Amino acid sequence: MSMGPLPAASPSLARLVQELHKLPGIGPKSAQRLAYHLIRLPEDEALALADAITSVKRNVIFCQDCQNLTDISPCSICQEPRRNQGQICVVEDPLDVMALERTHCYDGLYHVLHGVISPLNGVTAHDLKLGDLFKRLEAGSVEELVIATNPTLEGEATSMYIRRHLEGRDIRITHLARGLPVGGSLEYSDDQTLRRAFQGRQEL
Amino acid sequence: MSMGPLPAASPSLARLVQELHKLPGIGPKSAQRLAYHLIRLPEDEALALADAITSVKRNVIFCQDCQNLTDISPCSICQEPRRNQGQICVVEDPLDVMALERTHCYDGLYHVLHGVISPLNGVTAHDLKLGDLFKRLEAGSVEELVIATNPTLEGEATSMYIRRHLEGRDIRITHLARGLPVGGSLEYSDDQTLRRAFQGRQEL
Repeated sequence: MSMGPLPAASPSLARLVQELHKLPGIGPKSAQRLAYHLIRLPEDEALALADAITSVKRNVIFCQDCQNLTDISPCSICQEPRRNQGQICVVEDPLDVMALERTHCYDGLYHVLHGVISPLNGVTAHDLKLGDLFKRLEAGSVEELVIATNPTLEGEATSMYIRRHLEGRDIRITHLARGLPVGGSLEYSDDQTLRRAFQGRQEL
Repeated sequence: MSMGPLPAASPSLARLVQELHKLPGIGPKSAQRLAYHLIRLPEDEALALADAITSVKRNVIFCQDCQNLTDISPCSICQEPRRNQGQICVVEDPLDVMALERTHCYDGLYHVLHGVISPLNGVTAHDLKLGDLFKRLEAGSVEELVIATNPTLEGEATSMYIRRHLEGRDIRITHLARGLPVGGSLEYSDDQTLRRAFQGRQEL
């Protein structure tokens, strides 16, 4: 069924529905439901959402070290003195950092690539935060690099690219144990599987 | 699986995820996905959503006549001179007005109740826009009241309440036909729908 144009009873409302509909996974019906929900909310609660969006666009930056999204640079993880400065875990995106932090089994640092090498989608090594990673490794204080890209074709290719680039260097390179279902996504793994995979990481 | 607290790498981000998670039908994972989507959007597109929310809270009011949500009162439907002023269609909420307008088969006015009588949820007749409806009918120019509440227990109860209140008044009261949904199948209809369809069978 086509939704047809929205009647112009309220242009503000029509515009809100339109904006919500642009979000991933929000269809026209969901957009309407959400818009009406926002209208029925007390003003301060609805404005809290608007403000959170504005604030994210104003405040969120890349951490100068790990490239994770943060409000302050270096980020709170990089600044934490108790973390093992000799380990860096490379992940595709910030959600992966959250997923790993939830397992409480890793106390090293991270490096967020913000994507994977994917020629089909026009993403090359230069579009990722790989240069920053190699620069961090130049400093020489890193003993282990845990590659935690997703167990997908692109994730493996990115892992391979990093390993090749570091060939002959005195750094221990590991990857997460293949307890993860191949073709799956790290972000959606349950904590237990993720913990097992982390603990069983293997020499490359 | 518990999501656990979000790491405080970015309080702005954590707050946005939290605000999005409050929306109906948006779970913790969806809230994260949406938040990262908003972060990746160009600034003007993300702010367009924030602005649409703010604007809706500032501009949307109830139409003084039909109680629909609108930016101007009376709303554009009530102001349209070509519409039949002798018909009022009573609906539960603004989405129902949109649904009926899309059918292009009704050119009268509307009245939005903003809910249904539902004692279990603590909603009484006084919480709805029923007083405004009865006041509109006092004027005497309305010939037909089409009750288009949902065919649910609460919808029927609300319809019954309106009919009782208008007993003895010279107004034609109708409701939407009950029957088989177009494209539906007789075999899978529930007994109640089939009974109504049979009782309301029409001359071919």
